[in-house]
Amino acid sequence: MSELFDASVYADRLGRAQGLLRERGLAGIVIGPGPELAYLTGSWTSSHERLTALTVTPTKSRLIAPETDLHSLADSAVSELDVEVLGWADGENAHALAAAPILEGEGDADGAVGLGDSLTTRHVLALQELFAPRETKVAALALAELFTRKDAAEIEQLRAAGQAIDAVHAKVPELLRAGRTEAEVAADIDKLILERHDVVDFVIVGSGPNGANPHHDFSDRVLEDGDMVVVDIGGTFGVGYHSDCTRTYVVGGDPAKLPEEARSMYAVLAEAQEAAVAAVRPGVTAASIDDVARSRITEAGYGEAYFHRTGHGIGLSTHEEPFIMAGNDLVLEPGMAFSVEPGIYLRGRFGARIEDIVVVTEDGCERLNEGPRELR
Amino acid sequence: MSELFDASVYADRLGRAQGLLRERGLAGIVIGPGPELAYLTGSWTSSHERLTALTVTPTKSRLIAPETDLHSLADSAVSELDVEVLGWADGENAHALAAAPILEGEGDADGAVGLGDSLTTRHVLALQELFAPRETKVAALALAELFTRKDAAEIEQLRAAGQAIDAVHAKVPELLRAGRTEAEVAADIDKLILERHDVVDFVIVGSGPNGANPHHDFSDRVLEDGDMVVVDIGGTFGVGYHSDCTRTYVVGGDPAKLPEEARSMYAVLAEAQEAAVAAVRPGVTAASIDDVARSRITEAGYGEAYFHRTGHGIGLSTHEEPFIMAGNDLVLEPGMAFSVEPGIYLRGRFGARIEDIVVVTEDGCERLNEGPRELR
Repeated sequence: MSELFDASVYADRLGRAQGLLRERGLAGIVIGPGPELAYLTGSWTSSHERLTALTVTPTKSRLIAPETDLHSLADSAVSELDVEVLGWADGENAHALAAAPILEGEGDADGAVGLGDSLTTRHVLALQELFAPRETKVAALALAELFTRKDAAEIEQLRAAGQAIDAVHAKVPELLRAGRTEAEVAADIDKLILERHDVVDFVIVGSGPNGANPHHDFSDRVLEDGDMVVVDIGGTFGVGYHSDCTRTYVVGGDPAKLPEEARSMYAVLAEAQEAAVAAVRPGVTAASIDDVARSRITEAGYGEAYFHRTGHGIGLSTHEEPFIMAGNDLVLEPGMAFSVEPGIYLRGRFGARIEDIVVVTEDGCERLNEGPRELR
Repeated sequence: MSELFDASVYADRLGRAQGLLRERGLAGIVIGPGPELAYLTGSWTSSHERLTALTVTPTKSRLIAPETDLHSLADSAVSELDVEVLGWADGENAHALAAAPILEGEGDADGAVGLGDSLTTRHVLALQELFAPRETKVAALALAELFTRKDAAEIEQLRAAGQAIDAVHAKVPELLRAGRTEAEVAADIDKLILERHDVVDFVIVGSGPNGANPHHDFSDRVLEDGDMVVVDIGGTFGVGYHSDCTRTYVVGGDPAKLPEEARSMYAVLAEAQEAAVAAVRPGVTAASIDDVARSRITEAGYGEAYFHRTGHGIGLSTHEEPFIMAGNDLVLEPGMAFSVEPGIYLRGRFGARIEDIVVVTEDGCERLNEGPRELR
């Protein structure tokens, strides 16, 4: 990704992070490379096993990186932000450098510390030792609003990404011709995604029985007239935001060629997806949205055939909070963006899934995918 | 990677892990996807944010994975091992499933738990909560012999990988002709690596002043007669082991065309690398090998120009313990494999590095790269 938001966008996010730290009595956060660092600074730098980390306290921000990797920060907004940048050399204690602003900070001496989700065991344990007896938490959960409530610039990116993938889906029916293989169709879709995105994230073309395996990607299976086909596609767009949309098609375009059971199963699915989207609004839990879709599908007798969560958050990573699943008591708030993608899978026969990305608004949600959802 | 060792190799490793757990009074280890899981089971499965984990206690092994990803274990030795495999569905508590063999085990109730280094914050904190008040440690450090002492099958792979990259280096002098760009040379090297490896890991062609930046990869700079050129290359081989070897060349092949200072600097470097390799034997620390190379270079007045560690372990990952650097008190043991790669970098002018992979033997070490080290 070489595109960046204006530096003021990142400055605003760092400011919101500091405000939330104060509000929660947290001493600070330490964030590793990946989507969270890109969110706060625009940098996608990675330094493998050597530690790169952004530390934010209520009053200060510091970015540490191996000296030899400092040049890779040039692609980011770091130089325009109020962030102290420190290089470290092999043999220096990088964890101590990252921890210092918190240990020496003016914040609550007992305040917990949030750790970014890309840090691995080695770094987590080394930081915990330095921060003890302070508690450590998952930063993305401790500051859920920061990472999960998309700001206006992000929603604009997700909206444009949604339109980009909708434009690809608009051309899928003409690609799904009897006699072609799933792999041939997938190669065509790859090209269409790249016309409107920077990177192809994934392409699933699951025809006939392959549609009943939600983790199938594509194969040399030859499409037959009247096959049900699950097409789940996404790419990386603009500043690094992702698209992700699923539609289910019929080879030849005539749903009348499907077995009666496939059509009635699809009607159940479409109704469940619609009801789940309609239930999205501030104040309800992520789990409740899963429950809406799942209970409709279960009541119709397909509960066993729906064995994955209803959705996942999306932004600078393809899968993030809020995860729309049983047990997730996270309360939805305006600006949260996630997929609503129930599916029904009859092993060895056929399957179907419908997926839209939605953004929670003040009183409901906005759908970011608008392509037709009926079988066609 | 589709190649696998015989299942007995993995069974032996799991058995050694259990023996070490008993010996150390550890309650168990929990390992995520990546090189450590591949080491113990042959599986390179990955399930992104959903937890896949291998739990090993002194008496039992369990592998948990999302139900929808169980099929990806088919490429591994898992079905031939004494490992209980459990699938989990969205909404189930995957961490509890992974922790259960330890929590319910017959091991020491106070015993610490080792966590694999690919686990991220979310999983580390969730497991710590379940294991509390037991201590958690970095598994690769708590069981350092297991992961860092290569067995015979691994050394054979690393030896063959070393020969493969030596064969590529043998052809590099004829590629380094005045008038070609670094990028053209790198493209040729890519093809040569792929003739003998499955994947190109990295190609560095740093000519003239670019050789003074150890993190340069390659550019459109045009080679000139008499340029000093650092060529650092590696690939993935066989079951998933890595090669990594650096040589420094002269465009045109005649060191007499170099400035006198470049030749004397190179002589210092070659002597330092040789001395560091000669110092490798069981019983000395990783830091001591770094010190041998660094003190030679520093005594010759180039201390400031040598600003990275002397080496890194290598195996199923490109960089792993033992890291050969100041502060690492890890004691070398037979079977440990790592690079010895000092470099001297005169910013804006030229640089040089010499790198061999070595394996510690009972009374010294075996070099796995044997191509000529003199300037040519």
